[in-house]
Amino acid sequence: MQTAGLFITFEGIDGAGKSTHIAALAEAFRAQGREVTLTREPGGTPLAEKLRELVLNDPMDPLCEALLMFAARRDHLQQVIEPALARREVVLCDRFTDATFAYQGAGRGFDLAVLGQLERWVQAMPAQDGRLRQPDLTVWFDLPPAVAADRLAGARLPDRFESQPQAFFERVAAGYGDRLRQDPARFVRVPSDQPREAVWRAVRLSFEQRGWLQVEGVR
Amino acid sequence: MQTAGLFITFEGIDGAGKSTHIAALAEAFRAQGREVTLTREPGGTPLAEKLRELVLNDPMDPLCEALLMFAARRDHLQQVIEPALARREVVLCDRFTDATFAYQGAGRGFDLAVLGQLERWVQAMPAQDGRLRQPDLTVWFDLPPAVAADRLAGARLPDRFESQPQAFFERVAAGYGDRLRQDPARFVRVPSDQPREAVWRAVRLSFEQRGWLQVEGVR
Repeated sequence: MQTAGLFITFEGIDGAGKSTHIAALAEAFRAQGREVTLTREPGGTPLAEKLRELVLNDPMDPLCEALLMFAARRDHLQQVIEPALARREVVLCDRFTDATFAYQGAGRGFDLAVLGQLERWVQAMPAQDGRLRQPDLTVWFDLPPAVAADRLAGARLPDRFESQPQAFFERVAAGYGDRLRQDPARFVRVPSDQPREAVWRAVRLSFEQRGWLQVEGVR
Repeated sequence: MQTAGLFITFEGIDGAGKSTHIAALAEAFRAQGREVTLTREPGGTPLAEKLRELVLNDPMDPLCEALLMFAARRDHLQQVIEPALARREVVLCDRFTDATFAYQGAGRGFDLAVLGQLERWVQAMPAQDGRLRQPDLTVWFDLPPAVAADRLAGARLPDRFESQPQAFFERVAAGYGDRLRQDPARFVRVPSDQPREAVWRAVRLSFEQRGWLQVEGVR
């Protein structure tokens, strides 16, 4: 049977346990013999990682930030994501365009129409009538910002995003909710204010239900 | 008399003597007591200079390049050009948006409509009904690419743009011509295949005619 590539993105504010569950999913896919590409945004290529450093650390206005985010995304799509999907791999990507809408758009109040135009340019697939590249599934780890703040307190020095006040993260969470409502079939929302094992079961189940992972214990 | 700020840009392929004449103009304005800001694109701010290094040296696709060019321009406008104009200075800028249309658009064949949208976003002046910031004058040093190639031969190692074949620079020159035809009042075209002193007289005259420099010898 021919297996298609899978493009999975993971969203949510820091402190939701994203990294742990991405690593566990990579292991689960590899245990089934799938090739997995683990990557992240902003970043994922040498050029995009340089842009990530600028975006996270240099002061800049929201339009400049949005242009750099989508420039990095363009390079990432062309150099890493599209080639891996063409090789029928599973691409697990820590944050993608929904994060730009949530952080720059809802969080900072930047013009959503501009972000939408940038999305249409950067994710267009010319070989497929300009249809947009979108994730096959987006796992949104939905954690109340107050809980996230408690979990992260003192963990490390905050970057330009992490040092925002809690009201910012409330807007970010609302922004993720807006993206989900615009394309519910693409999303699975995982309430993440519960023990890690319960979150993992919810994540794993959403992959089993789509036939992408075998049901555990059933071979 | 209250003197307004002046935003002057200089365009043309390398080898046309741009740098020499920009320096001479700066001196002429300073001799009249004007404050002058000398700057360049891509670049002109710490962030934009970092982006310049990436654009000139890292391989990337044309959309990524266009986004980085306009991100750098946004930072440059906000951090350097607009503040200098607000202080009523003369801003002399080595290349600006016309260069993006000439090099990325005409030279590489990148979508001019995308560049036009980026120009409208990045150069919008919200305090003035979204009217675009455009140069008060653009001096186009128009030099046949074959002459430029002779002048530059062996001068230094070429960067990612300079190493293009001559046909590329023919398209760039045509691109500058297109921009001139779209907004002729903003441009002065200076044929630059002539002795430096003759080019300088043409440049200086175009500033004297606008009343921006006093006629030499007349005080």
